[in-house]
Amino acid sequence: MPENVNRQFRLKSRPNGYPEESDFDLTREPIPRPRHGEILVKTLWLSMDPYMRGRMSEARSYTAPVPIGGIMQGGVVGRVMESKDDRFSPGEIVNASLGWQEYGVVPAGAARKVDPGIAPISTALGVLGMPGMTAYFGLLRVGRPEPGDTVVVSAASGAVGAVVGQVARIMGCRAVGIAGSDEKIGYITGELGFDAGINYKTEDVDAAIGEACPDGVNVYFDNVGGAITDAVINHLAYRARVAICGQISQYNLPNPEMAPRNLRAFLTNQASLEGFLVNRFADDHERGRQRMALWIKEGRIKYREDVVEGLENAPKALIGMMHGANFGKLLVRVSEE
Amino acid sequence: MPENVNRQFRLKSRPNGYPEESDFDLTREPIPRPRHGEILVKTLWLSMDPYMRGRMSEARSYTAPVPIGGIMQGGVVGRVMESKDDRFSPGEIVNASLGWQEYGVVPAGAARKVDPGIAPISTALGVLGMPGMTAYFGLLRVGRPEPGDTVVVSAASGAVGAVVGQVARIMGCRAVGIAGSDEKIGYITGELGFDAGINYKTEDVDAAIGEACPDGVNVYFDNVGGAITDAVINHLAYRARVAICGQISQYNLPNPEMAPRNLRAFLTNQASLEGFLVNRFADDHERGRQRMALWIKEGRIKYREDVVEGLENAPKALIGMMHGANFGKLLVRVSEE
Repeated sequence: MPENVNRQFRLKSRPNGYPEESDFDLTREPIPRPRHGEILVKTLWLSMDPYMRGRMSEARSYTAPVPIGGIMQGGVVGRVMESKDDRFSPGEIVNASLGWQEYGVVPAGAARKVDPGIAPISTALGVLGMPGMTAYFGLLRVGRPEPGDTVVVSAASGAVGAVVGQVARIMGCRAVGIAGSDEKIGYITGELGFDAGINYKTEDVDAAIGEACPDGVNVYFDNVGGAITDAVINHLAYRARVAICGQISQYNLPNPEMAPRNLRAFLTNQASLEGFLVNRFADDHERGRQRMALWIKEGRIKYREDVVEGLENAPKALIGMMHGANFGKLLVRVSEE
Repeated sequence: MPENVNRQFRLKSRPNGYPEESDFDLTREPIPRPRHGEILVKTLWLSMDPYMRGRMSEARSYTAPVPIGGIMQGGVVGRVMESKDDRFSPGEIVNASLGWQEYGVVPAGAARKVDPGIAPISTALGVLGMPGMTAYFGLLRVGRPEPGDTVVVSAASGAVGAVVGQVARIMGCRAVGIAGSDEKIGYITGELGFDAGINYKTEDVDAAIGEACPDGVNVYFDNVGGAITDAVINHLAYRARVAICGQISQYNLPNPEMAPRNLRAFLTNQASLEGFLVNRFADDHERGRQRMALWIKEGRIKYREDVVEGLENAPKALIGMMHGANFGKLLVRVSEE
């Protein structure tokens, strides 16, 4: 490959149901040059996140979809190769929304410096990045747990879920995680210290929640929606809080799934439910990041990364995530650090 | 009928679906006598409320059901006939949970004096009673409207809904009501001053909400649940609040109704939903009542009563309410004032 080539994935077609590799187009262009106030970034790590499925659809959402032919959106950690802004120097590590590509130019104000001294730089896409802040603020500000509460989280071994359970433990709650394999359950109850785990693929989730949460569920942090969420709602405690972070079980359905109505459970328990996006708490992210960095140093927050090698494997990685194939924060290593 | 007879309705059988008159038993007993600390009350007005359907079922709820053979629960306004407590004198008017009967004995501490000088005493079961407080505190504390917000309420001509819309107007909101006849719509938009009304029996509710709420729904006060609520959820605005007060459309279904999942609307709009019961705000009811009484005097809050004559017609009245037959606060006149 010649030196001046930048490869990127563009959206070729909008998936109907699960995305397929043919929905993505690997294209080549010359590496762009930064103008005044911009920086050129070389991608080292590309983050794979469930929200990306939403950007592939035209359905009404909180932000505009990727246009057909547009570069797939995504957060990266990369190295500054060239800077036309006083705030950045070549060689520095930054976190920016570069998209699925090897190189990209961004306004300097849209990049955030990553300190390699605090933790491995890839954590800026995971536990110290968007997923970590989603977990931290979603749990604390939307779930509002109190010590002694039972906190249930779905997709519990994922980038968000794993942090939710560990922060819940730090604040004196019981943490119950739901995940899709015995290996994942072993990880959250063993290495991460969750009090209980439920394998939704092999257990009767409703019965298992009843057993794991004899006093009901005070906080449910929902990453998945669907039948798992129905089962948790059956066990809401008085004045329970449900934080809706994701609904990944629904993202790949061509039509809305039918399910028994259950709003009455919110009435009789005087429970509440709230959807949130991490950017609501943007002003406080830096403070959240400092807390999390300290907890990582103290060994109170652990994390696991699931690394896929090479930009060319990004579509396969995203499709796998939609089926629950990843184990831990899913990252694509685009270039060697 | 001899002087010393007290008639009451007892629960004969638990309904499967809509209640029927055969589920109630009209029984006769001697009028009870109060003991120390108690009062004997003669029922003048018996309140008919949707929650009564829940008490007829064994399904898990916020309070125990009426046992088979037990007296149907219900709030009344009555006259003190005999008092064994310093706080009450014969002839005074009180509000108490006497149940569906002509006479009853209650602990003095469980009765509340009603001042006949403020408003007709029947309002202690409506606009100045449980439904009024449900509307006032549910809207203000759970819906948390801001001036300029669009507030949608279902069962809008009912005892709760009519107050919700009028309080919303008082605080500078747009009020949109949903009800089941053109006459009811004419009443809420004419006499009560709602900004718009939707007849769910003749209109496409989803399209009508889109038209009546071009900037989306900021607050939805839900009395009914079901397909009407689905339609409103399609139009939630950013950070909308849904206050779940009742789900009357679901109370008479033998099995939960299936419906398309819609939690994703709460995620993309960062909206919230909360169930509540009026007793959560009990400490503040007296203050709410004073506000409402003032607004009634000023003509800013109007109300309408739907009066059924005679205790013997109470079952028919409740069944009719379940079908939306009443127009305004449903009351049974048990004895002449």
